[in-house]
Amino acid sequence: MAASKLPATRMIAKGPVAVPIMRYELFYWPSIQGRGEFIRLALEESGVDYVDMARESGRGRGVHAMMTLMDDMPHPPFAPPYLRAGRLVIGQTANILQYLGPRLGLVPKAERARLWAHQLQLTIADLVAAIHDTHHPIAAALYYRQQKPEAKRRSRYFIAERAPKFLGYFERAVAAGRGHLVGRRLSYVDLSMFQIVAGLRYAFPNMMARLEPRHPHLVALHNRVAQRPNTAAYLASPRRLPFNEDGIFRRYPELEGR
Amino acid sequence: MAASKLPATRMIAKGPVAVPIMRYELFYWPSIQGRGEFIRLALEESGVDYVDMARESGRGRGVHAMMTLMDDMPHPPFAPPYLRAGRLVIGQTANILQYLGPRLGLVPKAERARLWAHQLQLTIADLVAAIHDTHHPIAAALYYRQQKPEAKRRSRYFIAERAPKFLGYFERAVAAGRGHLVGRRLSYVDLSMFQIVAGLRYAFPNMMARLEPRHPHLVALHNRVAQRPNTAAYLASPRRLPFNEDGIFRRYPELEGR
Repeated sequence: MAASKLPATRMIAKGPVAVPIMRYELFYWPSIQGRGEFIRLALEESGVDYVDMARESGRGRGVHAMMTLMDDMPHPPFAPPYLRAGRLVIGQTANILQYLGPRLGLVPKAERARLWAHQLQLTIADLVAAIHDTHHPIAAALYYRQQKPEAKRRSRYFIAERAPKFLGYFERAVAAGRGHLVGRRLSYVDLSMFQIVAGLRYAFPNMMARLEPRHPHLVALHNRVAQRPNTAAYLASPRRLPFNEDGIFRRYPELEGR
Repeated sequence: MAASKLPATRMIAKGPVAVPIMRYELFYWPSIQGRGEFIRLALEESGVDYVDMARESGRGRGVHAMMTLMDDMPHPPFAPPYLRAGRLVIGQTANILQYLGPRLGLVPKAERARLWAHQLQLTIADLVAAIHDTHHPIAAALYYRQQKPEAKRRSRYFIAERAPKFLGYFERAVAAGRGHLVGRRLSYVDLSMFQIVAGLRYAFPNMMARLEPRHPHLVALHNRVAQRPNTAAYLASPRRLPFNEDGIFRRYPELEGR
Protein backbone atom coordinates (compact mmCIF):
# COMPACT_ATOMS: atom_id res chain seq x y z
CA MET A 1 0.00 0.00 0.00
CA ALA A 2 2.98 2.23 -0.57
CA ALA A 3 1.41 4.40 -3.24
CA SER A 4 -1.76 5.56 -1.53
CA LYS A 5 -3.02 8.98 -2.54
CA LEU A 6 -4.98 9.57 0.64
CA PRO A 7 -4.28 12.53 2.91
CA ALA A 8 -1.95 11.92 5.85
CA THR A 9 -4.79 11.32 8.29
CA ARG A 10 -8.31 10.29 7.35
CA MET A 11 -11.33 9.23 9.34
CA ILE A 12 -13.21 5.97 9.06
CA ALA A 13 -16.43 5.04 10.74
CA LYS A 14 -15.93 2.37 13.40
CA GLY A 15 -19.06 1.78 15.41
CA PRO A 16 -20.63 4.96 16.71
CA VAL A 17 -17.51 7.16 16.45
CA ALA A 18 -15.08 8.04 13.71
CA VAL A 19 -11.54 6.79 14.35
CA PRO A 20 -8.57 8.55 12.81
CA ILE A 21 -6.55 6.25 10.59
CA MET A 22 -2.91 7.15 10.43
CA ARG A 23 -0.99 7.06 7.23
CA TYR A 24 2.64 6.54 8.11
CA GLU A 25 5.42 8.16 6.14
CA LEU A 26 8.74 6.33 6.06
CA PHE A 27 11.83 8.25 5.03
CA TYR A 28 14.76 6.11 3.91
CA TRP A 29 17.22 5.71 1.05
CA PRO A 30 15.31 4.58 -2.04
CA SER A 31 17.90 2.21 -3.53
CA ILE A 32 18.77 -0.11 -0.63
CA GLN A 33 17.06 -2.32 1.92
CA GLY A 34 19.41 -1.13 4.66
CA ARG A 35 18.08 -0.34 8.12
CA GLY A 36 14.83 0.92 6.62
CA GLU A 37 13.93 -2.62 5.59
CA PHE A 38 13.21 -3.62 9.19
CA ILE A 39 10.52 -0.94 9.23
CA ARG A 40 9.21 -1.73 5.75
CA LEU A 41 8.70 -5.36 6.81
CA ALA A 42 6.58 -4.32 9.82
CA LEU A 43 4.49 -1.89 7.78
CA GLU A 44 3.95 -4.41 4.97
CA GLU A 45 3.09 -7.38 7.20
CA SER A 46 0.53 -5.33 9.11
CA GLY A 47 -1.12 -4.07 5.92
CA VAL A 48 -1.23 -0.52 7.24
CA ASP A 49 -1.39 2.53 5.02
CA TYR A 50 2.10 3.98 4.42
CA VAL A 51 4.23 5.87 1.93
CA ASP A 52 7.90 5.15 1.29
CA MET A 53 8.54 8.85 0.84
CA ALA A 54 12.00 8.96 -0.74
CA ARG A 55 10.95 6.41 -3.37
CA GLU A 56 8.11 8.60 -4.58
CA SER A 57 8.14 11.86 -6.46
CA GLY A 58 6.16 15.00 -5.90
CA ARG A 59 5.98 17.65 -3.22
CA GLY A 60 7.71 16.64 0.02
CA ARG A 61 8.92 13.38 -1.53
CA GLY A 62 12.20 12.11 -2.93
CA VAL A 63 15.69 12.05 -1.44
CA HIS A 64 16.21 15.79 -1.53
CA ALA A 65 13.01 16.40 0.43
CA MET A 66 14.04 13.72 2.93
CA MET A 67 17.36 15.46 3.60
CA THR A 68 15.86 18.95 3.69
CA LEU A 69 13.12 17.94 6.11
CA MET A 70 15.70 16.32 8.38
CA ASP A 71 17.64 19.54 8.68
CA ASP A 72 14.60 21.66 9.34
CA MET A 73 12.85 19.88 12.19
CA PRO A 74 13.17 20.72 15.89
CA HIS A 75 14.09 17.16 16.93
CA PRO A 76 16.07 15.96 13.93
CA PRO A 77 17.17 12.37 13.46
CA PHE A 78 20.91 11.79 13.12
CA ALA A 79 20.34 9.82 9.91
CA PRO A 80 17.57 8.00 8.00
CA PRO A 81 15.43 6.01 8.58
CA TYR A 82 12.88 8.20 10.22
CA LEU A 83 9.11 7.95 10.43
CA ARG A 84 6.47 10.68 10.32
CA ALA A 85 3.28 9.76 12.13
CA GLY A 86 0.97 12.75 12.09
CA ARG A 87 2.86 15.47 13.95
CA LEU A 88 5.46 13.11 15.40
CA VAL A 89 8.80 12.45 13.75
CA ILE A 90 10.74 9.51 15.15
CA GLY A 91 14.30 8.44 14.42
CA GLN A 92 16.42 5.32 15.13
CA THR A 93 15.18 2.02 13.69
CA ALA A 94 14.56 0.24 17.00
CA ASN A 95 12.78 3.31 18.40
CA ILE A 96 10.50 3.43 15.35
CA LEU A 97 9.67 -0.28 15.67
CA GLN A 98 8.99 0.11 19.37
CA TYR A 99 6.56 2.94 18.55
CA LEU A 100 4.88 1.06 15.72
CA GLY A 101 4.73 -2.34 17.44
CA PRO A 102 1.58 -1.87 19.53
CA ARG A 103 -0.08 0.28 16.85
CA LEU A 104 0.38 -2.42 14.20
CA GLY A 105 -0.49 -5.32 16.51
CA LEU A 106 3.07 -6.57 16.24
CA VAL A 107 4.00 -6.81 19.93
CA PRO A 108 2.10 -7.96 23.04
CA LYS A 109 0.59 -5.34 25.34
CA ALA A 110 2.35 -6.28 28.59
CA GLU A 111 5.33 -4.13 29.59
CA ARG A 112 7.49 -7.20 30.28
CA ALA A 113 6.98 -8.46 26.72
CA ARG A 114 7.62 -5.05 25.20
CA LEU A 115 10.86 -4.63 27.13
CA TRP A 116 11.99 -8.07 25.94
CA ALA A 117 11.02 -7.27 22.34
CA HIS A 118 12.97 -4.02 22.41
CA GLN A 119 15.95 -5.69 24.10
CA LEU A 120 16.05 -8.27 21.30
CA GLN A 121 15.65 -5.55 18.66
CA LEU A 122 18.60 -3.63 20.10
CA THR A 123 20.66 -6.82 20.02
CA ILE A 124 19.65 -7.26 16.37
CA ALA A 125 20.82 -3.66 15.83
CA ASP A 126 24.20 -4.60 17.33
CA LEU A 127 24.41 -7.54 14.94
CA VAL A 128 23.46 -5.31 11.99
CA ALA A 129 26.30 -2.93 12.91
CA ALA A 130 28.70 -5.89 13.13
CA ILE A 131 27.57 -7.07 9.68
CA HIS A 132 27.96 -3.59 8.20
CA ASP A 133 31.46 -3.31 9.58
CA THR A 134 32.59 -6.54 7.91
CA HIS A 135 32.81 -4.51 4.69
CA HIS A 136 33.43 -1.12 6.33
CA PRO A 137 35.76 -1.69 9.30
CA ILE A 138 37.66 1.60 8.91
CA ALA A 139 35.17 4.27 7.82
CA ALA A 140 31.71 4.51 6.30
CA ALA A 141 33.05 7.46 4.32
CA LEU A 142 35.49 5.24 2.40
CA TYR A 143 34.62 2.80 -0.36
CA TYR A 144 34.87 -0.90 0.35
CA ARG A 145 37.80 -1.22 -2.05
CA GLN A 146 39.69 1.30 0.08
CA GLN A 147 39.47 -0.94 3.17
CA LYS A 148 39.54 -4.41 1.69
CA PRO A 149 42.45 -5.93 3.67
CA GLU A 150 40.89 -4.77 6.94
CA ALA A 151 37.48 -6.01 5.78
CA LYS A 152 38.92 -9.47 5.10
CA ARG A 153 40.49 -9.62 8.54
CA ARG A 154 37.35 -8.39 10.30
CA SER A 155 35.18 -10.83 8.35
CA ARG A 156 37.33 -13.78 9.47
CA TYR A 157 36.51 -12.98 13.11
CA PHE A 158 32.88 -12.22 12.32
CA ILE A 159 32.45 -15.59 10.62
CA ALA A 160 34.39 -17.55 13.24
CA GLU A 161 33.14 -15.87 16.41
CA ARG A 162 30.60 -13.06 16.32
CA ALA A 163 28.06 -14.50 13.90
CA PRO A 164 27.89 -17.88 15.70
CA LYS A 165 27.57 -16.11 19.06
CA PHE A 166 24.69 -13.90 17.90
CA LEU A 167 22.90 -16.66 15.99
CA GLY A 168 23.28 -19.08 18.89
CA TYR A 169 21.74 -16.52 21.21
CA PHE A 170 18.76 -15.91 18.92
CA GLU A 171 18.35 -19.65 18.25
CA ARG A 172 17.97 -20.28 21.99
CA ALA A 173 15.49 -17.40 22.26
CA VAL A 174 13.29 -18.74 19.44
CA ALA A 175 13.48 -22.26 20.90
CA ALA A 176 12.51 -20.97 24.37
CA GLY A 177 9.66 -18.97 22.81
CA ARG A 178 8.35 -22.06 21.00
CA GLY A 179 8.78 -20.58 17.56
CA HIS A 180 8.42 -16.88 18.29
CA LEU A 181 10.88 -14.48 19.83
CA VAL A 182 8.27 -12.58 21.85
CA GLY A 183 4.96 -13.87 23.20
CA ARG A 184 2.86 -16.43 21.37
CA ARG A 185 2.29 -14.60 18.11
CA LEU A 186 4.27 -12.93 15.39
CA SER A 187 6.05 -9.75 16.49
CA TYR A 188 8.12 -7.13 14.71
CA VAL A 189 11.20 -8.86 16.17
CA ASP A 190 10.38 -12.05 14.23
CA LEU A 191 10.16 -9.97 11.04
CA SER A 192 13.56 -8.45 11.75
CA MET A 193 15.00 -11.90 12.45
CA PHE A 194 13.70 -13.06 9.06
CA GLN A 195 15.65 -10.21 7.48
CA ILE A 196 18.83 -11.16 9.36
CA VAL A 197 18.66 -14.77 8.11
CA ALA A 198 17.80 -13.69 4.56
CA GLY A 199 20.58 -11.08 4.54
CA LEU A 200 23.23 -13.38 5.96
CA ARG A 201 22.30 -16.01 3.38
CA TYR A 202 22.91 -13.40 0.69
CA ALA A 203 26.16 -12.03 2.12
CA PHE A 204 27.76 -15.14 3.61
CA PRO A 205 26.22 -18.17 1.87
CA ASN A 206 29.04 -20.56 2.81
CA MET A 207 28.90 -19.54 6.45
CA MET A 208 25.14 -19.97 6.54
CA ALA A 209 25.32 -23.36 4.82
CA ARG A 210 27.53 -24.45 7.73
CA LEU A 211 25.57 -22.72 10.50
CA GLU A 212 21.96 -23.38 9.49
CA PRO A 213 21.83 -27.07 10.49
CA ARG A 214 22.73 -25.98 14.04
CA HIS A 215 20.03 -23.27 14.07
CA PRO A 216 16.83 -25.09 13.04
CA HIS A 217 14.48 -22.77 14.97
CA LEU A 218 15.88 -19.68 13.27
CA VAL A 219 15.55 -21.28 9.84
CA ALA A 220 11.97 -22.38 10.59
CA LEU A 221 11.11 -18.87 11.80
CA HIS A 222 12.55 -17.39 8.60
CA ASN A 223 10.49 -19.77 6.48
CA ARG A 224 7.25 -19.15 8.37
CA VAL A 225 7.65 -15.38 8.06
CA ALA A 226 8.39 -15.64 4.34
CA GLN A 227 5.15 -17.57 3.83
CA ARG A 228 2.80 -15.17 5.59
CA PRO A 229 0.44 -13.80 2.93
CA ASN A 230 1.20 -10.08 3.36
CA THR A 231 4.94 -10.61 3.67
CA ALA A 232 5.03 -13.11 0.79
CA ALA A 233 3.17 -10.61 -1.41
CA TYR A 234 5.59 -7.87 -0.41
CA LEU A 235 8.66 -10.02 -1.08
CA ALA A 236 7.32 -10.85 -4.55
CA SER A 237 6.52 -7.21 -5.35
CA PRO A 238 8.74 -4.49 -6.81
CA ARG A 239 8.49 -2.74 -3.44
CA ARG A 240 11.00 -5.27 -2.08
CA LEU A 241 14.34 -3.96 -3.31
CA PRO A 242 16.87 -6.66 -4.15
CA PHE A 243 19.94 -7.12 -1.95
CA ASN A 244 22.86 -5.23 -3.47
CA GLU A 245 26.40 -4.09 -2.76
CA ASP A 246 25.32 -0.67 -1.45
CA GLY A 247 23.41 -1.99 1.56
CA ILE A 248 24.24 -3.68 4.85
CA PHE A 249 24.33 -7.23 3.48
CA ARG A 250 26.84 -7.36 0.64
CA ARG A 251 28.02 -10.37 -1.29
CA TYR A 252 31.78 -10.02 -1.56
CA PRO A 253 33.00 -13.60 -2.03
CA GLU A 254 36.53 -12.69 -0.91
CA LEU A 255 35.21 -11.90 2.58
CA GLU A 256 34.27 -15.56 2.96
CA GLY A 257 37.74 -16.53 1.79
CA ARG A 258 36.38 -17.71 -1.53
CA MET B 1 23.97 3.96 48.17
CA ALA B 2 25.57 0.97 46.58
CA ALA B 3 26.10 -1.04 49.75
CA SER B 4 22.59 -1.12 51.19
CA LYS B 5 21.74 -4.17 53.25
CA LEU B 6 18.00 -3.82 52.80
CA PRO B 7 15.90 -6.52 51.16
CA ALA B 8 15.16 -6.14 47.47
CA THR B 9 11.80 -4.48 48.02
CA ARG B 10 10.77 -2.69 51.19
CA MET B 11 7.80 -0.58 52.16
CA ILE B 12 7.87 2.99 53.42
CA ALA B 13 4.99 4.98 54.78
CA LYS B 14 4.02 7.82 52.42
CA GLY B 15 0.88 9.55 53.54
CA PRO B 16 -1.92 7.12 54.32
CA VAL B 17 -0.58 4.17 52.30
CA ALA B 18 2.65 2.23 52.22
CA VAL B 19 4.51 2.53 48.91
CA PRO B 20 6.86 -0.20 47.75
CA ILE B 21 10.39 1.09 47.30
CA MET B 22 12.37 -0.76 44.70
CA ARG B 23 15.98 -1.61 45.22
CA TYR B 24 17.56 -1.91 41.79
CA GLU B 25 20.31 -4.41 41.11
CA LEU B 26 22.79 -3.49 38.39
CA PHE B 27 24.94 -6.24 36.91
CA TYR B 28 28.05 -5.04 35.10
CA TRP B 29 31.80 -5.63 34.96
CA PRO B 30 33.31 -4.43 38.23
CA SER B 31 36.58 -2.99 36.90
CA ILE B 32 35.45 -0.63 34.13
CA GLN B 33 33.05 2.24 33.56
CA GLY B 34 32.03 0.83 30.18
CA ARG B 35 28.40 0.82 29.13
CA GLY B 36 27.31 0.25 32.71
CA GLU B 37 28.44 3.75 33.63
CA PHE B 38 25.51 5.34 31.79
CA ILE B 39 23.22 3.45 34.15
CA ARG B 40 25.31 4.10 37.26
CA LEU B 41 25.11 7.85 36.53
CA ALA B 42 21.30 7.74 36.39
CA LEU B 43 21.01 5.68 39.57
CA GLU B 44 23.48 7.89 41.45
CA GLU B 45 22.00 11.22 40.34
CA SER B 46 18.51 10.14 41.36
CA GLY B 47 19.67 8.97 44.80
CA VAL B 48 17.71 5.74 44.46
CA ASP B 49 18.58 2.57 46.36
CA TYR B 50 20.71 0.23 44.22
CA VAL B 51 23.40 -2.41 44.41
CA ASP B 52 26.24 -2.72 41.90
CA MET B 53 26.05 -6.50 42.14
CA ALA B 54 29.28 -7.66 40.48
CA ARG B 55 31.30 -5.26 42.64
CA GLU B 56 29.99 -6.80 45.85
CA SER B 57 30.66 -10.16 47.40
CA GLY B 58 28.27 -12.62 48.97
CA ARG B 59 25.46 -14.78 47.75
CA GLY B 60 24.23 -13.86 44.25
CA ARG B 61 26.95 -11.23 43.88
CA GLY B 62 30.30 -11.00 42.12
CA VAL B 63 31.22 -11.63 38.48
CA HIS B 64 30.66 -15.37 38.60
CA ALA B 65 27.11 -14.92 39.91
CA MET B 66 26.48 -12.29 37.20
CA MET B 67 27.49 -14.73 34.45
CA THR B 68 25.65 -17.69 35.97
CA LEU B 69 22.43 -15.73 36.44
CA MET B 70 22.63 -14.55 32.82
CA ASP B 71 22.73 -18.11 31.53
CA ASP B 72 19.86 -19.29 33.71
CA MET B 73 17.11 -16.80 33.00
CA PRO B 74 14.25 -17.24 30.53
CA HIS B 75 14.89 -13.92 28.74
CA PRO B 76 18.67 -13.64 28.98
CA PRO B 77 20.58 -10.52 27.99
CA PHE B 78 23.19 -10.93 25.28
CA ALA B 79 25.82 -9.28 27.50
CA PRO B 80 26.09 -7.07 30.62
CA PRO B 81 24.90 -4.56 31.65
CA TYR B 82 21.56 -5.82 32.84
CA LEU B 83 19.25 -4.61 35.56
CA ARG B 84 17.09 -6.57 37.97
CA ALA B 85 14.04 -4.67 39.17
CA GLY B 86 11.96 -6.98 41.33
CA ARG B 87 10.99 -9.85 39.05
CA LEU B 88 11.99 -8.05 35.86
CA VAL B 89 15.40 -8.46 34.25
CA ILE B 90 16.21 -5.93 31.52
CA GLY B 91 19.15 -5.89 29.11
CA GLN B 92 20.63 -3.35 26.68
CA THR B 93 21.81 -0.04 28.12
CA ALA B 94 19.36 2.23 26.31
CA ASN B 95 16.47 -0.10 27.16
CA ILE B 96 17.42 -0.01 30.84
CA LEU B 97 17.61 3.78 30.82
CA GLN B 98 14.27 4.04 29.07
CA TYR B 99 12.77 1.83 31.79
CA LEU B 100 14.42 3.72 34.65
CA GLY B 101 13.86 7.23 33.26
CA PRO B 102 10.28 7.83 34.42
CA ARG B 103 10.82 5.84 37.64
CA LEU B 104 13.79 8.00 38.63
CA GLY B 105 12.25 11.30 37.50
CA LEU B 106 14.86 11.58 34.77
CA VAL B 107 12.63 12.03 31.71
CA PRO B 108 9.41 13.96 31.06
CA LYS B 109 6.09 12.09 31.10
CA ALA B 110 4.88 12.96 27.58
CA GLU B 111 5.34 10.27 24.91
CA ARG B 112 6.83 12.75 22.45
CA ALA B 113 9.59 13.66 24.92
CA ARG B 114 10.29 10.04 25.82
CA LEU B 115 10.63 9.06 22.17
CA TRP B 116 13.05 11.93 21.64
CA ALA B 117 15.04 10.97 24.75
CA HIS B 118 15.33 7.37 23.59
CA GLN B 119 16.21 8.42 20.05
CA LEU B 120 19.06 10.54 21.42
CA GLN B 121 20.17 7.72 23.72
CA LEU B 122 20.33 5.30 20.78
CA THR B 123 22.41 7.85 18.86
CA ILE B 124 24.72 8.08 21.90
CA ALA B 125 24.93 4.26 21.76
CA ASP B 126 26.00 4.51 18.11
CA LEU B 127 28.69 7.01 19.11
CA VAL B 128 29.84 4.73 21.96
CA ALA B 129 30.21 1.84 19.48
CA ALA B 130 32.19 4.11 17.13
CA ILE B 131 34.48 5.11 20.03
CA HIS B 132 34.97 1.48 21.09
CA ASP B 133 35.90 0.50 17.55
CA THR B 134 38.66 3.13 17.35
CA HIS B 135 40.77 0.74 19.46
CA HIS B 136 39.03 -2.49 18.34
CA PRO B 137 38.25 -2.15 14.61
CA ILE B 138 38.86 -5.82 13.80
CA ALA B 139 37.56 -7.90 16.72
CA ALA B 140 36.63 -7.45 20.37
CA ALA B 141 38.21 -10.87 20.94
CA LEU B 142 41.67 -9.58 20.00
CA TYR B 143 43.88 -7.34 22.11
CA TYR B 144 44.40 -3.76 21.03
CA ARG B 145 48.05 -4.49 20.26
CA GLN B 146 46.91 -7.12 17.75
CA GLN B 147 44.97 -4.54 15.71
CA LYS B 148 47.01 -1.39 16.17
CA PRO B 149 47.58 -0.42 12.50
CA GLU B 150 43.87 -0.76 11.79
CA ALA B 151 43.06 1.16 14.99
CA LYS B 152 45.28 4.03 13.88
CA ARG B 153 43.60 4.20 10.51
CA ARG B 154 40.10 4.01 11.95
CA SER B 155 40.92 6.67 14.56
CA ARG B 156 42.06 9.11 11.87
CA TYR B 157 38.60 8.97 10.29
CA PHE B 158 36.87 9.05 13.67
CA ILE B 159 38.76 12.21 14.67
CA ALA B 160 38.40 13.91 11.29
CA GLU B 161 34.79 13.00 10.47
CA ARG B 162 32.66 10.91 12.81
CA ALA B 163 33.39 12.64 16.10
CA PRO B 164 32.74 16.15 14.70
CA LYS B 165 29.53 14.94 13.04
CA PHE B 166 28.17 13.39 16.25
CA LEU B 167 29.27 16.27 18.49
CA GLY B 168 27.86 18.85 16.09
CA TYR B 169 24.52 17.04 16.12
CA PHE B 170 24.38 16.93 19.92
CA GLU B 171 25.59 20.55 20.21
CA ARG B 172 22.67 21.69 18.06
CA ALA B 173 20.27 19.59 20.15
CA VAL B 174 21.47 21.08 23.45
CA ALA B 175 21.34 24.58 21.96
CA ALA B 176 17.78 24.01 20.68
CA GLY B 177 16.79 22.62 24.09
CA ARG B 178 18.18 25.69 25.87
CA GLY B 179 20.70 23.76 27.89
CA HIS B 180 19.02 20.36 28.14
CA LEU B 181 18.69 17.63 25.55
CA VAL B 182 15.11 16.71 26.52
CA GLY B 183 12.46 18.93 28.06
CA ARG B 184 13.25 21.69 30.53
CA ARG B 185 14.96 19.67 33.24
CA LEU B 186 17.81 17.26 33.62
CA SER B 187 17.21 13.88 31.94
CA TYR B 188 19.15 10.64 31.78
CA VAL B 189 20.29 11.71 28.31
CA ASP B 190 22.07 14.74 29.78
CA LEU B 191 23.87 12.41 32.20
CA SER B 192 24.96 10.19 29.32
CA MET B 193 26.13 13.24 27.37
CA PHE B 194 28.25 14.26 30.36
CA GLN B 195 29.90 10.84 30.19
CA ILE B 196 30.59 11.19 26.46
CA VAL B 197 32.33 14.54 26.94
CA ALA B 198 34.29 13.28 29.97
CA GLY B 199 35.30 10.09 28.16
CA LEU B 200 36.34 11.81 24.95
CA ARG B 201 38.44 14.26 26.97
CA TYR B 202 40.21 11.27 28.50
CA ALA B 203 40.68 9.31 25.27
CA PHE B 204 41.25 12.07 22.72
CA PRO B 205 42.46 15.15 24.65
CA ASN B 206 43.98 16.87 21.61
CA MET B 207 40.86 16.37 19.54
CA MET B 208 38.67 17.73 22.33
CA ALA B 209 40.95 20.74 22.87
CA ARG B 210 40.30 21.59 19.22
CA LEU B 211 36.59 20.76 19.17
CA GLU B 212 35.37 22.16 22.49
CA PRO B 213 35.46 25.86 21.52
CA ARG B 214 33.00 25.01 18.71
CA HIS B 215 30.71 23.11 21.11
CA PRO B 216 30.07 25.51 23.99
CA HIS B 217 26.61 24.11 24.86
CA LEU B 218 27.97 20.58 25.24
CA VAL B 219 30.80 21.80 27.46
CA ALA B 220 28.39 23.84 29.59
CA LEU B 221 26.07 20.82 29.92
CA HIS B 222 29.02 18.64 30.99
CA ASN B 223 30.02 21.19 33.63
CA ARG B 224 26.51 21.64 35.01
CA VAL B 225 26.02 17.87 35.34
CA ALA B 226 29.39 17.49 37.10
CA GLN B 227 28.36 20.10 39.67
CA ARG B 228 25.01 18.58 40.65
CA PRO B 229 25.33 17.54 44.31
CA ASN B 230 24.52 13.83 43.91
CA THR B 231 26.62 13.44 40.77
CA ALA B 232 29.50 15.47 42.21
CA ALA B 233 29.47 13.27 45.33
CA TYR B 234 29.45 10.16 43.15
CA LEU B 235 32.31 11.37 40.97
CA ALA B 236 34.40 12.09 44.09
CA SER B 237 33.61 8.69 45.64
CA PRO B 238 35.39 5.35 45.19
CA ARG B 239 32.21 4.12 43.45
CA ARG B 240 33.28 6.10 40.37
CA LEU B 241 35.85 3.87 38.75
CA PRO B 242 38.67 5.73 37.00
CA PHE B 243 38.91 5.65 33.22
CA ASN B 244 41.33 2.94 32.15
CA GLU B 245 42.59 1.04 29.11
CA ASP B 246 40.09 -1.82 29.53
CA GLY B 247 36.97 0.27 28.95
CA ILE B 248 35.37 2.10 26.04
CA PHE B 249 37.35 5.33 26.41
CA ARG B 250 41.06 4.48 26.25
CA ARG B 251 44.00 6.85 26.19
CA TYR B 252 46.32 5.53 23.52
CA PRO B 253 48.29 8.61 22.42
CA GLU B 254 49.29 6.98 19.14
CA LEU B 255 45.64 6.98 18.04
CA GLU B 256 45.71 10.77 18.09
CA GLY B 257 48.88 10.71 16.04
CA ARG B 258 50.95 11.75 19.02
